[in-house]
Amino acid sequence: MTQLKNDTFLRALLKEPVEYTPIWMMRQAGRYLPEYRATRARAGSFMGLCTSPDYATEVTLQPLERFPLDAAILFSDILTVPDAMGLGLYFAEGEGPKFQRPLRDETAIRALVPAELDKLRYVFDAVASIRQALDGRVPLIGFSGSPFTLACYMVEGGGSDDFRHVKAMLYSRPELLHHILEMNTQSVIAYLNAQIDAGAQAVQIFDTWGGALSHAAYREFSLAYMQRIVAGLKREADGRRVPVIVFTKGGGQWLEDIAAIGADCVGLDWTTDIGQARARVGAKVALQGNFDPNALFAEPAAIEREVARILAGYGQGSGHVFNLGHGISQFADPAHAGALVDAVHRLSRRYHCD
Amino acid sequence: MTQLKNDTFLRALLKEPVEYTPIWMMRQAGRYLPEYRATRARAGSFMGLCTSPDYATEVTLQPLERFPLDAAILFSDILTVPDAMGLGLYFAEGEGPKFQRPLRDETAIRALVPAELDKLRYVFDAVASIRQALDGRVPLIGFSGSPFTLACYMVEGGGSDDFRHVKAMLYSRPELLHHILEMNTQSVIAYLNAQIDAGAQAVQIFDTWGGALSHAAYREFSLAYMQRIVAGLKREADGRRVPVIVFTKGGGQWLEDIAAIGADCVGLDWTTDIGQARARVGAKVALQGNFDPNALFAEPAAIEREVARILAGYGQGSGHVFNLGHGISQFADPAHAGALVDAVHRLSRRYHCD
Repeated sequence: MTQLKNDTFLRALLKEPVEYTPIWMMRQAGRYLPEYRATRARAGSFMGLCTSPDYATEVTLQPLERFPLDAAILFSDILTVPDAMGLGLYFAEGEGPKFQRPLRDETAIRALVPAELDKLRYVFDAVASIRQALDGRVPLIGFSGSPFTLACYMVEGGGSDDFRHVKAMLYSRPELLHHILEMNTQSVIAYLNAQIDAGAQAVQIFDTWGGALSHAAYREFSLAYMQRIVAGLKREADGRRVPVIVFTKGGGQWLEDIAAIGADCVGLDWTTDIGQARARVGAKVALQGNFDPNALFAEPAAIEREVARILAGYGQGSGHVFNLGHGISQFADPAHAGALVDAVHRLSRRYHCD
Repeated sequence: MTQLKNDTFLRALLKEPVEYTPIWMMRQAGRYLPEYRATRARAGSFMGLCTSPDYATEVTLQPLERFPLDAAILFSDILTVPDAMGLGLYFAEGEGPKFQRPLRDETAIRALVPAELDKLRYVFDAVASIRQALDGRVPLIGFSGSPFTLACYMVEGGGSDDFRHVKAMLYSRPELLHHILEMNTQSVIAYLNAQIDAGAQAVQIFDTWGGALSHAAYREFSLAYMQRIVAGLKREADGRRVPVIVFTKGGGQWLEDIAAIGADCVGLDWTTDIGQARARVGAKVALQGNFDPNALFAEPAAIEREVARILAGYGQGSGHVFNLGHGISQFADPAHAGALVDAVHRLSRRYHCD
């Protein structure tokens, strides 16, 4: 394998010395970029992008051509896994992802089995293709949704603003939800390990909806399964550690619990004070975050002030990967994203001179 | 004034001994009740309900006829205040509240002045009418939106899922947002004091959107103004203390800061562990919450288990007002709400026997 030219991101995840704070942006390849929209139009559909290793490679690399980002992340969707479990993923225009066969009755739930990896071959092919195209420029991040976040979509049948069905199941029939989560967990372990085999150099588990739970339910229905995933992952490839990042949006109250599951890094949304987070769990894990993605709607000078505040909050030394606290908005101005990346690189050097 | 027949709610807010844990539900008078929908149909519109003291009284009392709730809350809308400031509130069917004149340019913002209380007379008339109709049955809660939450609607022009405009203003032109917040604060102090004069026996400040901010921005743009409101309120009426409840949805990470602004009680959404919250701030304030409103979609037996868990989490003694962590869903089954109230009253007695 080619030697990495920029491994700042991997070093920061392991709290090894770095020269500056590395940055990548959740959803950095996406609709806010006109070149993405052009490729998406050529591909014909969102799933057309995801299932073609060529298109997935093209859009994964697009933000790196614009901005000196310190990592690339596989372009894919978190719902590829339940799709491979037979739920029938489709995207209704303007409505977000949906499943043809949501899990609503006990028979369907009991019949659920782990995803066949063969049906996800296109993802691993994309990882291999992107890794080759990167040619050692920056590390490649693989990812998956968390078992609970996947279950939300699988039970609701799509996005939801109240999680009515999955919460009814959680409280009334917890054993059914546990069966879904068990199948998801086995699927995600195999899915992420196959991404690592294909060339992913770090992996992130996105727990987008765990923050919608009570603390007690979060531990039982989301965190416990992420812990099993972390324990089941290959943690080394090409003789180098493959760091694991766990990110629960809205999980700031539970950092101690999250930091205890064995991941190398914990993601923070923008509501958490990063200095307090470091004091609470920084001895155990690296931290990723935590710029408010909607602060990108402000002027570049304001973006720079906010970057300075977060960098000062984390303070001196390694262990911080700069990122947004959630995916970049489709309405964000690419020039503002560029101002963010520039400010992080420029302002962070003073925190890494020892 | 008539003697209160049931003052359990007021005593719990002041951590005085009670026989059981009192309960009310945010949005307890609302669309999940068929009798509410019938009155709403007669009134012709949502604002028709709010602006008529007779209708407002009728719907405020409806949930008390069904359930032995320990408090009534004024039926109104948080956007009455910016409406009285001249922004032109209207409700587009199925779209939620909107403003005809959102605050988008500096001239309009600089021209903003506090609400004229005369334009809110219908609210104070409703408070007086409800208080009379209650006849001492349970205490009446008055309320207002927080200055920041009101500003979100005033700047966005309605609901928003990203708060793009208000966040751009917050980061790029903070002085403009501070002017809006200053006008809102002066308005809310006068508004809540007039509700207290009209008969409100406790007041709650709803900070629905403060949780969308970073910790630093929350303190500067939401909490600081709520602190000024708390300091500006009449805290006694009819020779009895008028307790103040402050509720920031998503504020669980900031409880210490919230508990320090002088309110009697801090509301918790369902993501916060109430036992941990009591350990953190329970010596300073009473706590209100924190049942997941969407757990009402589960069976009554499951609702009872969840009630038992929360009561045990708070533990022995007064200082807890049971509530939902957010408003009850329009799709909730009234029978499940009844099961909740029953379970709280039945299961909480053991925590109040000393």
